[in-house]
Amino acid sequence: MTEPVTPAQLADALGALRDRSPLVQCLTNIVVAQWTANLLLAVGAAPAMVDNPREAGAFARIAGGVLVNLGTPYDETAAAMREAVRAAGEAGTPWVLDPVAAGGLAWRTGLALELLDVAGPAVVRGNASEVLALAGGLGGKGVDATDTPEAAAGTAAAVAGRYGCVVAVSGPIDHVTDGTRTVRIANGHPWLTRVTGVGCALGALMAGFVAVTDDRLVAAAAATATLTVAADAAAARTAGPGSFAVALLDELADLTPSGLHDLVRLA
Amino acid sequence: MTEPVTPAQLADALGALRDRSPLVQCLTNIVVAQWTANLLLAVGAAPAMVDNPREAGAFARIAGGVLVNLGTPYDETAAAMREAVRAAGEAGTPWVLDPVAAGGLAWRTGLALELLDVAGPAVVRGNASEVLALAGGLGGKGVDATDTPEAAAGTAAAVAGRYGCVVAVSGPIDHVTDGTRTVRIANGHPWLTRVTGVGCALGALMAGFVAVTDDRLVAAAAATATLTVAADAAAARTAGPGSFAVALLDELADLTPSGLHDLVRLA
Amino acid sequence: MTEPVTPAQLADALGALRDRSPLVQCLTNIVVAQWTANLLLAVGAAPAMVDNPREAGAFARIAGGVLVNLGTPYDETAAAMREAVRAAGEAGTPWVLDPVAAGGLAWRTGLALELLDVAGPAVVRGNASEVLALAGGLGGKGVDATDTPEAAAGTAAAVAGRYGCVVAVSGPIDHVTDGTRTVRIANGHPWLTRVTGVGCALGALMAGFVAVTDDRLVAAAAATATLTVAADAAAARTAGPGSFAVALLDELADLTPSGLHDLVRLA
Repeated sequence: MTEPVTPAQLADALGALRDRSPLVQCLTNIVVAQWTANLLLAVGAAPAMVDNPREAGAFARIAGGVLVNLGTPYDETAAAMREAVRAAGEAGTPWVLDPVAAGGLAWRTGLALELLDVAGPAVVRGNASEVLALAGGLGGKGVDATDTPEAAAGTAAAVAGRYGCVVAVSGPIDHVTDGTRTVRIANGHPWLTRVTGVGCALGALMAGFVAVTDDRLVAAAAATATLTVAADAAAARTAGPGSFAVALLDELADLTPSGLHDLVRLA
Repeated sequence: MTEPVTPAQLADALGALRDRSPLVQCLTNIVVAQWTANLLLAVGAAPAMVDNPREAGAFARIAGGVLVNLGTPYDETAAAMREAVRAAGEAGTPWVLDPVAAGGLAWRTGLALELLDVAGPAVVRGNASEVLALAGGLGGKGVDATDTPEAAAGTAAAVAGRYGCVVAVSGPIDHVTDGTRTVRIANGHPWLTRVTGVGCALGALMAGFVAVTDDRLVAAAAATATLTVAADAAAARTAGPGSFAVALLDELADLTPSGLHDLVRLA
Repeated sequence: MTEPVTPAQLADALGALRDRSPLVQCLTNIVVAQWTANLLLAVGAAPAMVDNPREAGAFARIAGGVLVNLGTPYDETAAAMREAVRAAGEAGTPWVLDPVAAGGLAWRTGLALELLDVAGPAVVRGNASEVLALAGGLGGKGVDATDTPEAAAGTAAAVAGRYGCVVAVSGPIDHVTDGTRTVRIANGHPWLTRVTGVGCALGALMAGFVAVTDDRLVAAAAATATLTVAADAAAARTAGPGSFAVALLDELADLTPSGLHDLVRLA
């Protein structure tokens, strides 16, 4: 069986990110904005948090990639998200949607679906229940499904097919699919769930990788692998979630493409 | 003399928090949102920063506890606070008020008093001058009082009686009172005042404890004890406020109910 | 040649900051608010993030210094900035402008120029391209200039002359000028560019120093020297940008006036 993505492709993607330091526009939430910027800087990307409606569209035309994260939406930032996605669609800038808490909260679920209709995203990243929520409009499957990553796999493929994008579902095993090919990545540590915004920052990292990698499945998988391989190293030398988060930034800065190649565990 | 709260009760409260991982809705400020979420995750609670007026009320009905912190209020988040407190009152969700800078700033002082009238809080947490500010409407005592924790003790009891809640006043000795019973906790370290948002995160932690502990005096005291006992351990092995804050998260994750029982110093 | 600023003056300024712990009002961005507050607390200042239009003006009248940072402006916080700057001008409170991303983004560039006309700032702090953007109105020089710190030096002096303020341009060598005297500081480390908000926090630190130091050139230089001398020490004992940022807070808390005196490198 042919692997859908190889360690060499992931390593090349990280090399490209380091070489090109893409400009990543983040429209994200107040909880994780600093962490997201620091994680992007550690990896070697260039974050820019332009999230007001007067400037977000113009910036999306020049950014390498755009992240839209629905963690703490407000009227003004939601308007900025609409502008950014519209401009990204027009300019061909790849964008990533992280529909935080979609399903559980009505307004942002509607906002997520609205944004998906404005312009097709490069990647949708979320946990299983968030992805299932986006699939609600595809036939109501979300209602009855249990929200495990495994249960979400079929739904993820359906969402990927519907929007022509890659869908990445986080969990102990991360699943990344374009509807046809699926990558499973087994790196990572439970402390990733004890630090706020790891998933949010992963979405931003995907926006960086899609800026420098044509194959979006490779891009989303490379972002996931980079974060979780660094997390393995950070967890191995720290004592709790506080020191782990600090070490994660150091490990991300230190990780080389060849290190990524050797340490990623495709499952 | 009977202790109002025993170390065993505090330990049981921490055990309940770990077992039940309550969902804590935080309407807080832009300065401390990340820190608050990380501190709740470290202890074992489940933070959710839902602070827009379109979703805050619905979420307050399903949350275990709600924190309203006035650190950086805006028109939209203030509207969300009103929705959250109203819904919390209707649904019986306990909520905690942290009236940051009340007294010194007019708009938020009025907002704090308005929220207190919408629904009675489980806990009001602040420093001495903030609690005194809330007592202004009780007869103007706030105006002349010096704002030391000791001077605030009588006022705290009056505020507790007026709103039927627990009042927690931070200081070198933390005072927690329900108007009748008062707990004093002597743990803690001066570096707690050199890290932004420790008090704010303590308010969030109280919202977590009231979700799992019927006796609100025990809940507020357990939150205070958990934070300050962990702070003692963190300060003992760090070199300054930066490393102290990181270690505090590690120590909060490591602290066991029996450790809390043995190390808390009720004064 | 007479040095425009001596190490002894910088040390005295740090001593004054420690002694008087000035109240620094920060109207800053969602990315760096926590970091800025923690950095001010580490150094010994008292941060207060009052950034809504209902309270910002009143607070600017009592603050020791005010920082206005354009990192993530919104309609409401922009209104607060206008109120704060107007009140600062009326009350004689020194204020610092950090025109983040001015030049590249139209709305905030206009906002920066508008604020400069409301009341003269004590200090403008930015990178080379941001300072050049502010000079656009001085004759369009910004358009053709390459945005290196060296190229910005002349423009910085022009901006300083136009607004009667100090202009500080960050780079491997930091330039601080009042249009007549120029200080160059050679401390610092490349990791300062791998942690988000270091420049933003430096602006806040300048707002603290101008509150306690009459000579604004000394104030801005002392802030720069304090941050970069601490950065040297932090970088010498850490392994990457995550641990560096934590150590920077510890080193800022530890730095003494005599240490600053001995370690600053005026170029």
